Amino acid sequence: VWTPEGVTGARPLVLVGHGGGLHKRADYVLGLARRLVRHQQMAVVAIDGPFHGDRPEAGEIDLAAATSQRRLAFWSDDAANNMIADWQSTTDQVQRLPEIGDGPLGYWGLSMGTIFGVPYVASEPRVRVAVLGLMGLIAPLDTRLAADAAYINCPVLFLQQLDDELISANAAVELFRAIASTDKRLHAHPGAHSAVPVEEIEASESFLARHLRTP
Amino acid sequence: VWTPEGVTGARPLVLVGHGGGLHKRADYVLGLARRLVRHQQMAVVAIDGPFHGDRPEAGEIDLAAATSQRRLAFWSDDAANNMIADWQSTTDQVQRLPEIGDGPLGYWGLSMGTIFGVPYVASEPRVRVAVLGLMGLIAPLDTRLAADAAYINCPVLFLQQLDDELISANAAVELFRAIASTDKRLHAHPGAHSAVPVEEIEASESFLARHLRTP
Repeated sequence: VWTPEGVTGARPLVLVGHGGGLHKRADYVLGLARRLVRHQQMAVVAIDGPFHGDRPEAGEIDLAAATSQRRLAFWSDDAANNMIADWQSTTDQVQRLPEIGDGPLGYWGLSMGTIFGVPYVASEPRVRVAVLGLMGLIAPLDTRLAADAAYINCPVLFLQQLDDELISANAAVELFRAIASTDKRLHAHPGAHSAVPVEEIEASESFLARHLRTP
Repeated sequence: VWTPEGVTGARPLVLVGHGGGLHKRADYVLGLARRLVRHQQMAVVAIDGPFHGDRPEAGEIDLAAATSQRRLAFWSDDAANNMIADWQSTTDQVQRLPEIGDGPLGYWGLSMGTIFGVPYVASEPRVRVAVLGLMGLIAPLDTRLAADAAYINCPVLFLQQLDDELISANAAVELFRAIASTDKRLHAHPGAHSAVPVEEIEASESFLARHLRTP
């Protein structure tokens, strides 16, 4: 959990879901958290994904193979449902802190952070804005992702890498189209899966800030 | 030509190419010009496209059919070459004005503004930044557009409408990919050809400003 220093009172809380093979303190998770906390006075929380980081089951699967070879061995319907429950209990706990409180929720997660973010955002009407991407309607996730995307109605920024070695351009656009939100935009860049430019971290910050700022 | 009131000295100049069936004082041309002049202290110039507006040949073709039915009757290699010459003489004239001067150039043009903008930007190394889009590698323009796009090296923001009734999603992405610039991004939205959201006018303004601001 990251919060601004010396503040009290309710503030927006952004949940950050990390990518496959990484963990809740991955460099870009820390970088995004620091931006949102320091520039926007928001609170941020990250938790490990299934089979990742400090989870008891971590090490049970070959994460490098699971992510880079599209085997996605960390994924199952149960894993998605468990992550929904974990995010719910995380927000419940974290929002009890006096320096966070009961403010609006945002979600940011790419790649595996979208695999588990789409079911979570679909299930949680308190999420007011989401940044998703680096994922598409690919087997074996496509049925679940498409079904859940149809329940996402908040403003969405979706990020795509046009030379993504894991997700075809068409699969990414299909997932973007499946999101029910009318207020959504797709930002695409040349380059590989992990080459998201800092410009989109800046865009994420301003997009989250715009939609989480108290009216 | 639009310039800020009461200023002197060189400033960035943005050339705006309008869409098919419209003219140099179309609503969104005026809106963008006013933003750039008032918020960014830039100069802006727009000229009519071939067969459009106050051109001597205006009325020779059915513009509504030429644009909405993808007949693109205003297009030819000669028309593209003539527009290059017209933009060159326009900038030469306009930059002689003391309140504009010899500053950096930017280009903004969607749809027909990209059809003629790609050849122009490819031919003019003084153009430092371009906003293009609502166009793709479609016959009979595809060969020329692809060839010219390979000479564009400046930072590019490319706009796409995912439900564009004139340009398929694949054709648009192909044109984006054909642009040689390494610093380029594609912003896509749901909706029809002419439904570009105001968010992308704002993005255009900040993108042009970022790259035309004097170092």
